[in-house]
Amino acid sequence: MASLSKVAEILSEKNNIEILTHHYPDGDTLGSAYALCLMLQSLGKNAKVITSGRVARKYDFLKKGVQVQDFLREYVVSVDVAAPSLLGENQQEYENIIDLCIDHHGTNSISAEESYIDAKAAATGEIIYELSKEMGIGLTREMASCIYTGISTDTGCFRYSNTTPCTLLIAAELMAVTPEWHEINTQMFEVKTREKLNLEKMVYETLEYSCEGKCALIYTTLEMQEKAGITDDEMEGLASIPRQIEGVLLGITMREKADGTFKISVRSNKDVSASDFCARFGGGGHKAAAGCTVVGDLETVKNQLMLAACEML
Amino acid sequence: MASLSKVAEILSEKNNIEILTHHYPDGDTLGSAYALCLMLQSLGKNAKVITSGRVARKYDFLKKGVQVQDFLREYVVSVDVAAPSLLGENQQEYENIIDLCIDHHGTNSISAEESYIDAKAAATGEIIYELSKEMGIGLTREMASCIYTGISTDTGCFRYSNTTPCTLLIAAELMAVTPEWHEINTQMFEVKTREKLNLEKMVYETLEYSCEGKCALIYTTLEMQEKAGITDDEMEGLASIPRQIEGVLLGITMREKADGTFKISVRSNKDVSASDFCARFGGGGHKAAAGCTVVGDLETVKNQLMLAACEML
Repeated sequence: MASLSKVAEILSEKNNIEILTHHYPDGDTLGSAYALCLMLQSLGKNAKVITSGRVARKYDFLKKGVQVQDFLREYVVSVDVAAPSLLGENQQEYENIIDLCIDHHGTNSISAEESYIDAKAAATGEIIYELSKEMGIGLTREMASCIYTGISTDTGCFRYSNTTPCTLLIAAELMAVTPEWHEINTQMFEVKTREKLNLEKMVYETLEYSCEGKCALIYTTLEMQEKAGITDDEMEGLASIPRQIEGVLLGITMREKADGTFKISVRSNKDVSASDFCARFGGGGHKAAAGCTVVGDLETVKNQLMLAACEML
Repeated sequence: MASLSKVAEILSEKNNIEILTHHYPDGDTLGSAYALCLMLQSLGKNAKVITSGRVARKYDFLKKGVQVQDFLREYVVSVDVAAPSLLGENQQEYENIIDLCIDHHGTNSISAEESYIDAKAAATGEIIYELSKEMGIGLTREMASCIYTGISTDTGCFRYSNTTPCTLLIAAELMAVTPEWHEINTQMFEVKTREKLNLEKMVYETLEYSCEGKCALIYTTLEMQEKAGITDDEMEGLASIPRQIEGVLLGITMREKADGTFKISVRSNKDVSASDFCARFGGGGHKAAAGCTVVGDLETVKNQLMLAACEML
C-alpha cells in the first residue's frame, strides 16, 4: 500500500484525471469525489467525477464550483469503491484501468496500480481531508462542504460507532470553513418528502416480530411504492426502522424490486452479525449493516428470513 | 454576571450543595447536574441532585458513581433551569433560595445570588465541561458520560444549528475518556419501545397541512396515549416529526394533558421563529424550538394554532 505522502506526490504529477464513485452513490463517495475533483482543479489540472446509477437530487449541491472539463483521460482514481462490482455500469470499462484506489473499507478488492486503504477512517472523506493537508491545499468552502457531507453521512452525523475523536476534530475544522454544514445536516438527515412519509406510514403496518421479539421485519412492495408515489432513490433510510425497536437484535427490511427479486437490508445490535446473516443468502457487508438479494414471492421470502433469523439468534 | 473563574472559586469554598434540574428533566439538565455532583464529591464535598417530575428510565445510568449523601443544605445551584416555573414541584421551596444559576438559555429569568449564563454554549453540559477545567478537576469516565449526554442530546447529536466547532472539540475529548459514548447515542437517539412505535403510527394518521404546506400539525390525545400504553416520560421526540417534512416551515405538535390543557411544541425551519409563534400564546423558548400551553378542546385549539400560523407565515 502507498503512503499518503506518496499518493499526494503522484496526484501532484498527474493530469487529466477521472474520479470514479460507487454505484447508486451516497454522500461519502460523492462528497469525496467532488472534493478531490475541486482540489485537483484548484491546482490547474483537468479532472471530472464519473458516477454510476441515478444520483439523488439532494446531492446536487456537491457539484458547486466544479468546472466541467473535456479531456482525454490519463489517470483513473476510485474513491469509496470497495469492489469492482460496485462500479455498476462502469465496471467493464474501468475495472482493469484503475490507477489509484482510495477507500476506507478494509475488505477492498479493487486491483489498482496504487492503493491507499485506511479502515480506521470513519469515511473516505476523512482520507480526502488528510490528503488535502498532505498536498498543501487550503480547503475552500465548497471543498469543506463536500468533505463534511461525506463524513457526516457515513457516521450518521457522528452517532455511529465508527466515529472517532479524530472525526470530530476534522469536522470542527470543516464547520469553521463552511457555513453550509447545518443546511447539509438538515437535507441529509431531517427532510422527508410527503411521499416518503406516506410510504413510512404503510411500512409501519407491515411490521412483524419473531424469535420472541429479537427479530423485527418490515417490507415494501412495488405496489406500496407506486401508491406512495416514491422513486427508487428515495427508498433509503427505511432499513433503520426495525433495528430501533427495544429488544430487537436483528432488523430486516425487504424491498420488492422490478426484476422480481427482494433486496434485503439487515441491521443488527450488540453481538449479532448482520453480515453473517446475509452470508447465508449469498450477501455480505459490515457487522452491523449488511445486505443480500433473495428470489421468491413475499410470503416465502419472509418465512425463509424469519426462520434463518431464529436459527441464528 | 459572575465569571467562570469566580464560579469555580465559589464552588471550591462551599459545601453541602443541592443541585436543581428543570421539571421533567432531559439529558442536558440531568447530565450537567450529575456531572457537577460527581465533580463536587470528588473534591470531598457533600452534594446531591434534586429533580422534579418523573425521570425517564433511560437516564438511570447518569447516576453511576454518585454517592447518596445526607446533609443539611448550605448552598443551592440550578443547572439548565431557564425560569422559576420550570422548577416544577420544587418551585415554592427553592425559587427564592437559589445561590448560583448556571445555564445556556439567553432568556434565563431565575433570580440568584450569582449567575453564569452562556447563551453561546450549545448545552449547559459545555459550561460544566469548562467549569471542570477551571476547577482543575480531571474528568472521570462517569463525569465524561454525563457531560457527553448533555451535549449530544441538546444538539441532536451535533446536528442542530446550536452546535459549534467548540462543541465538537469538547465532544472529541469526552469520547476519548468514556467508551460509553456510542451506547449513549444508541439509547438516546435510536432505541424506541414497541409502545412508542404504536403511538407514532397513530400520530402519523393525525397529520394535517395548512398554509400551502408551510405548516404541518400532529397531535396526541390521552386516549391515543392509553391505547398505545405509553407513559408521559416516553412522549418526547414526537415534536420533530412535522418539521421534517419537505416545505414545512412551522411544525406544531399538540399533546393533550390530564389537566384539560394542550401542551404545544413548535419547531421551525429557516427564518421562521418558533419562539415568536409561541409568544402569541404566552409561551417561549429558542428560535427553532419553543413551546406553550393552550386551553380548549382539540378542534378549537387546532384551528387557533393553524390560523395563527397562517397569519405569521
